[in-house]
Amino acid sequence: MSEICWLKSRYNSGLRHNARWIKASGLKLRFCTNETQATRDKFVKKLQRLGFNISVNEVTAPAPAACRILKERNLRPHLLIHDELVPEFDQVDKANPNCVVIGDAADNFSYKNLNEAFRVLIGLENPILISLGRGRYYKETDGLKLDVGVYMKALEYACDIQAEVVGKPAKMFFQSALAEMEVEPQQAIMIGDDIVNDVGGAQQCGMKALQVRTGKYRPCDEQHPEVKADGYVNNLAEAVDIIVKQLHK
Amino acid sequence: MSEICWLKSRYNSGLRHNARWIKASGLKLRFCTNETQATRDKFVKKLQRLGFNISVNEVTAPAPAACRILKERNLRPHLLIHDELVPEFDQVDKANPNCVVIGDAADNFSYKNLNEAFRVLIGLENPILISLGRGRYYKETDGLKLDVGVYMKALEYACDIQAEVVGKPAKMFFQSALAEMEVEPQQAIMIGDDIVNDVGGAQQCGMKALQVRTGKYRPCDEQHPEVKADGYVNNLAEAVDIIVKQLHK
Repeated sequence: MSEICWLKSRYNSGLRHNARWIKASGLKLRFCTNETQATRDKFVKKLQRLGFNISVNEVTAPAPAACRILKERNLRPHLLIHDELVPEFDQVDKANPNCVVIGDAADNFSYKNLNEAFRVLIGLENPILISLGRGRYYKETDGLKLDVGVYMKALEYACDIQAEVVGKPAKMFFQSALAEMEVEPQQAIMIGDDIVNDVGGAQQCGMKALQVRTGKYRPCDEQHPEVKADGYVNNLAEAVDIIVKQLHK
Repeated sequence: MSEICWLKSRYNSGLRHNARWIKASGLKLRFCTNETQATRDKFVKKLQRLGFNISVNEVTAPAPAACRILKERNLRPHLLIHDELVPEFDQVDKANPNCVVIGDAADNFSYKNLNEAFRVLIGLENPILISLGRGRYYKETDGLKLDVGVYMKALEYACDIQAEVVGKPAKMFFQSALAEMEVEPQQAIMIGDDIVNDVGGAQQCGMKALQVRTGKYRPCDEQHPEVKADGYVNNLAEAVDIIVKQLHK
C-alpha cells in the first residue's frame, strides 16, 4: 500500500519534524495552499527559513493553476491581485483583457480598483471571472481580514455571473495536485484545519480527509451541516503518527 | 377617482414642467429616490436650483427610513456610508454599535473600512446589516460605478447573513412612502426607468408601474424574465399626459 500524506501549508513548529518523518517513511508530501498574497518562491523561502525541507515544486497554489487555465483557453487577464503575486503572471499576455483574475488583493481592494475590474467584466460579451479561492476571511495579528471570496461575490452580483474558483475547495485544484503527484484520490489523505476548504474540498475529490484541531478549527466544525471529516486529530504529529502506523500494518 | 402620480427622482429638463402639471391637476406627487450620497436637504436644493418646486417632505429616501428602523429597534449603527450622508444620522446613537448600516459609500468603500464594518458584524451574537438599497451599479460622467448592493452582498457572504434592504425595491420602502402620502397602493402609480427597483418594487407593493424609456432603460427590459411593466412610455411627459387624461375621463 502506498499511502500518500498530504499536508496543507499552515506552518507551525511541529510541522517541519513531521514533514521530515513523512518523507523518511517513503510517503509523498505536498503542500496545498490558497496563499495568494505571495509567489510560491517567496512562500517557500519563508518556510525554508523556518527550517522546512521543501521546494517550489512541492507546492500547489492557485496562481499557477490559474495561469494554466489562462493559457489553455487563450484568456488575457485583467489582474486584481496582491502586488506580491504579480510575478506569477509574468509570462501571461495581459493586453486587451478578456477576463478578470481576482486574488486576495488586500489593500488593493480599493473602490477604484474594484470599479476597474467591474468595467472590464461588464464590457465583455461573455464575462469570465477567475477567483483564486472563495475564502470569507482570515486572521492576522491585527485582527480579522476579508478574503478574496467576499470580493468575488461582490463582482458576481455586480455582473450577474458565476466565478470559476481555482483554489481550495475547488475539485479541479485537488485534481491537479493529485496529477502532479501521480496518485489516485483514494491513495491520498488531506490534513487541514479548514472544514470546508480542506476537508470538504478533498472529500469532493474522492480523498479521505482529517481535520486538525488547531489553527482555524472551531469545535462547532465537528457538527458542520454539510462536511464530516473522516477523522479528527489534536495536532499534526498525531495525524502523521496514525498514517505512518497504518502504513506499517 | 383620486389617482396619484408617483415619480422617481431622476431629474431631467422635462420633469419640472411635468411636476408642475401634475400638481396643477390636483394629484399628489412624491419623489422616491435611492440616493444615499447626499442628505435630502442637499438633494432637494440641487433640484430647486434646477427650477423644481419640491420640498424635503415630498422625498422618500432610504436614510430617514433607516433612522426610523434604528429608533424602533434600539439599534446603534456602525455607519459605512458616504461622508455627505452622515448628517442624516446626526440624531442617532452610534456608541457601542450593535448593527451596521451600509449606503453607497463610493470612495469610502476601502479595504480598511469594509474590514471595520465586517469586524463589527462578526463580533455580534446576532449580526444585523441594514442596506440602503441593493443596486448593482450606476453611471456617472466618468463611467460605471459599483453601487451599495455589491458591498452588501460582500458583507452578507463574509458573515453568512442576509441584509435588510431599506431602499427600492423593498416593499417596506414603498409602503412607507404610501403611508406618508396617505393613499392606498391601488390609488398610486409609479413611473421609473429601473425595471427591477422602480417597476418591480412598486408592483410588489400592489401599485401599477410604468417604465419610462429613458435613463437606465434598456430595450431588453421589456423581455425581463421576472418583471413586466404595466405600460411603457417614451418619456415622462407621455406618462403624465396619459395619467392626466385618465383622470379627466
